[in-house]
Amino acid sequence: MLIEMKNISELMIDLAYSALIYDNKEIAEEVKYLEEKIDETYERIQELAIQTAIETKNSAIALVIIRLATSIEAISDSAVQIAEVVLRDIPPHPILRESIREGDITIVLGRVSKKSVLANKTLGELNLASETGMWVIAIKRDKKWIFGPTENTKLLPGDRLIAKGPVGGVKHFLNLCSGATHKI
Amino acid sequence: MLIEMKNISELMIDLAYSALIYDNKEIAEEVKYLEEKIDETYERIQELAIQTAIETKNSAIALVIIRLATSIEAISDSAVQIAEVVLRDIPPHPILRESIREGDITIVLGRVSKKSVLANKTLGELNLASETGMWVIAIKRDKKWIFGPTENTKLLPGDRLIAKGPVGGVKHFLNLCSGATHKI
Repeated sequence: MLIEMKNISELMIDLAYSALIYDNKEIAEEVKYLEEKIDETYERIQELAIQTAIETKNSAIALVIIRLATSIEAISDSAVQIAEVVLRDIPPHPILRESIREGDITIVLGRVSKKSVLANKTLGELNLASETGMWVIAIKRDKKWIFGPTENTKLLPGDRLIAKGPVGGVKHFLNLCSGATHKI
Repeated sequence: MLIEMKNISELMIDLAYSALIYDNKEIAEEVKYLEEKIDETYERIQELAIQTAIETKNSAIALVIIRLATSIEAISDSAVQIAEVVLRDIPPHPILRESIREGDITIVLGRVSKKSVLANKTLGELNLASETGMWVIAIKRDKKWIFGPTENTKLLPGDRLIAKGPVGGVKHFLNLCSGATHKI
């Protein structure tokens, strides 16, 4: 459950910054939805940790686990706060977008063309993250979103991918999306 | 300044989890040190945002910037909380380490051998992040630490590297460190 909390909290931060960059309320709403999942998991972790403490008569481990879960929960709260900037209808200032784009790690939007080597392959087959440094964090397919895609998610022509990764990997990623290069 | 805050807060989270995995107080102390930097930047951002609001007679942008900075500050506070688990002298439970190692993104420790292709090259020359997905977040050289190395940081034989990246990139990274493979 801690693994799940950590993964979701990291996805929430990435999505929150994406929502800000693309001024997109649907992504921002997903961050709020994920917060509910985090809260449920957080409560279950607390319960289990205390039950285990009673059974083992050992409080140290329960304290550490609750503390870690509390910190992860606080991170996800911050992600919601960032996402709420988008939901508040304040026109986002270009400086905000730039400050996210120009970090060491950036967020970029690519569209999978028909001739792209990414089309009709799963993320697991492509190994994009370990081959290019770019993580696909969300996919927009027609009007539907896929948030936090897994290894089994297949990319289709026309998909719009939101990806996170090093600035140096962006050009290669966009070329893979457009089909300008086929070498991953 | 927002870029700086965002970069530092992300480094803090990575280092906090690293401190937990390796039960390392020096890394945990660095997280606390970086929190001071965050706090200074946070105060300066607030001042500047309010001054600009007065000058432009426009409160909307100041509010958004302060809100974003507040969220990033909260993220860095959470990183400190995670790091403090290590500083509290509670023996870390293996489950905690596993929960970090087994996420989608993992943290790994490699040692640069003399025959490694990484030796005596800068991170900028190597393009590790975009070629392998692995980010070097800290380097231990003899008894000294280099936290958040830049493009200009040169890797030396004997360096121990803490790197973050996709599980699928770990083996390749360790082979590059040991010299078992030279192809980045």
